[in-house]
Amino acid sequence: MKQQSAQDRWEQRTQRPLLGLAVAFAVAYAVPIVWPEADREVTSWCTRVEWAVWGLFALDYLVRLVLTERRREFVRTHWLDLCAVLLPLIQPMRLLRLVSTLLLVGQRARMAPQIRLTTYVVGAVVALLMFGSLAVLSVERESPEGNIRTLGDAVWWSFTTMTTVGYGDHAPTTGLGRMIAVGLMLSGIALLGVVTANIAAWFISRFESDDVEERRQTAAIEALAEEVRALRAQVAALSDSASVVAEERLS
Amino acid sequence: MKQQSAQDRWEQRTQRPLLGLAVAFAVAYAVPIVWPEADREVTSWCTRVEWAVWGLFALDYLVRLVLTERRREFVRTHWLDLCAVLLPLIQPMRLLRLVSTLLLVGQRARMAPQIRLTTYVVGAVVALLMFGSLAVLSVERESPEGNIRTLGDAVWWSFTTMTTVGYGDHAPTTGLGRMIAVGLMLSGIALLGVVTANIAAWFISRFESDDVEERRQTAAIEALAEEVRALRAQVAALSDSASVVAEERLS
Amino acid sequence: MKQQSAQDRWEQRTQRPLLGLAVAFAVAYAVPIVWPEADREVTSWCTRVEWAVWGLFALDYLVRLVLTERRREFVRTHWLDLCAVLLPLIQPMRLLRLVSTLLLVGQRARMAPQIRLTTYVVGAVVALLMFGSLAVLSVERESPEGNIRTLGDAVWWSFTTMTTVGYGDHAPTTGLGRMIAVGLMLSGIALLGVVTANIAAWFISRFESDDVEERRQTAAIEALAEEVRALRAQVAALSDSASVVAEERLS
Amino acid sequence: MKQQSAQDRWEQRTQRPLLGLAVAFAVAYAVPIVWPEADREVTSWCTRVEWAVWGLFALDYLVRLVLTERRREFVRTHWLDLCAVLLPLIQPMRLLRLVSTLLLVGQRARMAPQIRLTTYVVGAVVALLMFGSLAVLSVERESPEGNIRTLGDAVWWSFTTMTTVGYGDHAPTTGLGRMIAVGLMLSGIALLGVVTANIAAWFISRFESDDVEERRQTAAIEALAEEVRALRAQVAALSDSASVVAEERLS
Repeated sequence: MKQQSAQDRWEQRTQRPLLGLAVAFAVAYAVPIVWPEADREVTSWCTRVEWAVWGLFALDYLVRLVLTERRREFVRTHWLDLCAVLLPLIQPMRLLRLVSTLLLVGQRARMAPQIRLTTYVVGAVVALLMFGSLAVLSVERESPEGNIRTLGDAVWWSFTTMTTVGYGDHAPTTGLGRMIAVGLMLSGIALLGVVTANIAAWFISRFESDDVEERRQTAAIEALAEEVRALRAQVAALSDSASVVAEERLS
Repeated sequence: MKQQSAQDRWEQRTQRPLLGLAVAFAVAYAVPIVWPEADREVTSWCTRVEWAVWGLFALDYLVRLVLTERRREFVRTHWLDLCAVLLPLIQPMRLLRLVSTLLLVGQRARMAPQIRLTTYVVGAVVALLMFGSLAVLSVERESPEGNIRTLGDAVWWSFTTMTTVGYGDHAPTTGLGRMIAVGLMLSGIALLGVVTANIAAWFISRFESDDVEERRQTAAIEALAEEVRALRAQVAALSDSASVVAEERLS
Repeated sequence: MKQQSAQDRWEQRTQRPLLGLAVAFAVAYAVPIVWPEADREVTSWCTRVEWAVWGLFALDYLVRLVLTERRREFVRTHWLDLCAVLLPLIQPMRLLRLVSTLLLVGQRARMAPQIRLTTYVVGAVVALLMFGSLAVLSVERESPEGNIRTLGDAVWWSFTTMTTVGYGDHAPTTGLGRMIAVGLMLSGIALLGVVTANIAAWFISRFESDDVEERRQTAAIEALAEEVRALRAQVAALSDSASVVAEERLS
Repeated sequence: MKQQSAQDRWEQRTQRPLLGLAVAFAVAYAVPIVWPEADREVTSWCTRVEWAVWGLFALDYLVRLVLTERRREFVRTHWLDLCAVLLPLIQPMRLLRLVSTLLLVGQRARMAPQIRLTTYVVGAVVALLMFGSLAVLSVERESPEGNIRTLGDAVWWSFTTMTTVGYGDHAPTTGLGRMIAVGLMLSGIALLGVVTANIAAWFISRFESDDVEERRQTAAIEALAEEVRALRAQVAALSDSASVVAEERLS
């Protein structure tokens, strides 16, 4: 067995706690949006939880950076994580913190060896649907011409956007809302691609078994094996007659 | 021939009767929606037929559970059937009965060995279009802001939704109607995936025959066969000369 | 060379004239719709041309049926052509004649050996766009609530429908118009499938060449060939020593 | 190493300068649209830059035509470039110059050996989004019924069109605007195809390694190799006994 590096062990052990933190972040993000008339204290606690989760993911990045052997390569291959850590420091606003934490969770999830691409994309799509709905709701509710004002409308709009149906009965009117919408559209296209590719790969893996050229090859190899078996029999007969000669000669 | 188990025989024999029951359910479901000013007695008969079909599918599940040899595995691998059987018991409402019966029919249809994936998906899409139109019509007609009020509008809306065109001239406004819409959108994406995958698989199976590596292999095998044939001729010549020696020696 | 049957020769010779007829039909179909205030005589001439083209395609079907050797099989495998021939006889209306002629042209075009699937689908999509626009225009212009009233609007609507964009600024309101729309939507999905499948097949045919298992096989075959070559050298040496013995014995 | 032709060297050296010219064109195209109340002089300078860039790309085409060895073939295989060069000469209008320059840049970019298809398509999509937004804005702003009046609306509309979402909150109303929209829709379908195909190709290249037929072949080849090895041992034994006979005879 290959010896695990300190970095690998850290990543395996923190996998589950970080997933728990992501759920805590989701709750803390959802509460003030879904329940806008909440107590001031609840809202401020939620903000603190959000920052704490971002901080712990940033800490996780630093620990992995310290534990790794080739630091320069780590920074280069994990540039997206670095951006996600630094982003909310530049301009401390709600939306950037959301994007940062989603990016950090996504990067850690992709690292988990037991998660396949399909699972990853489906998970990302569900997370984007959920956070997209909440983010659009919080942005559009404050806009005077906005037409997305309840959680139900926001979720419904997210679905019509991500499946590229786009009825147009609800549509974002603010710049931020539209940026979120573009994110949902692009993930919808990715989702469609993964669904199609999965079905296609499964179909083709079944078609493959009927390859004509390969069957001809198998037949050719079997004919060759028959030929070699006949040759062995010939050589065995020759060997017998030779030993008869030899024995006679010795007698 | 492999001996058929009691479960297999049951599944084969009940295939056609259950399909007939599914058609009866479709009729009983459609009548009160398409013909809302119908007699009270007609409506109540339709409801009875719907419950009876669900009951018979539930019975089919139980019989298969009794006939199977490994019950625990059956329950585990057929958990979707179990949900479909139990769902309408929890909260006895129309929509859940519809979903349950569709699930049970779908599970039984998928089991039929003569049905290929494409046929199954196309069948499911047609069924979803039909039941989706009816369900949306029954839900939206009662909503004050609803804009889907005739069967024609409902079918038209189903098509624009499933093909992800989404004009927005008709769109569901109630929570239940939107849940049905999301189901239609997701099946539309699955349909698109199956269509694309089918065409792609067919294309690729034709491209495949021009594989360069395989042609090189076939050439290598043929050269090898030539070599072995030459070797056999050599051994045969050797064998002849040896027998000449042996004969001379004996004479 | 394989001898061509009378049917094959007929199909090859009539390929071009029938294509010309299809163009004549397109013109005769377009004129009364694009130019509604045209002379009564022009319109009646166009109708005559439409019927004549349908008649000649029907005649072509009959000639092929007479020339073929296995008539029962021809009817069975060309049932779509038969439907297209019989359809306008049942209820002689404009839309059915359009569908029939499109079907007959499509069937004959698919038969042409030099046309590949992609060309066929792209051609079908362009034809559907053109005829769909004209048909919707003629149907919706007469509807009081219709919002597709100019050729420009009709073409624009066809594009937004076939690409599944579906803005909803123009949408059919009549039953016939909606049936045409569903046809366009489904062809749009087919077009998307063919485009994706083509790109995917091209990508995969390039990926294929790097198959690991096949390279191992080639290596194994080459090692085997080396082995057989060594064996031949051994047998040749044995043959030499045997001939030395034999010669000595004869001397 | 293959000797580079004069044409190849020219194409390699001009790759970067032409990319710079494309950026200059983009800026000159964007300025008068984004900043409509700009000075008359600024606008006229932008027009001059646009024409200059088109002229330099046309010059590049001529130089390549002079440097190539087979001129007739060059014209035939680069007919799209020729069209792009000649197009703005026929009817000197803004939109045609835009299309021409985009075509010329695209043709040159596709030639670059280091650019893969995916990169090319993504680049083309981004360029089309940008230029499509600007072109639609300049066309629709002047239309009395137009509803795309700010750059934000134009970019938002481009995204909803290219991803085939099509809310319909903004839609072009003029003929030119709709032609641009059709271009965006078709590129959206191409983009979706490339995304899906890429994912599918990646999936399938992983599925491939589990080919059953190929494993049977490998097993057959290995069994054959075993057989040949046994044969060599037999022949070696025979050879030994033959040499014993020969030696004895000589002694």
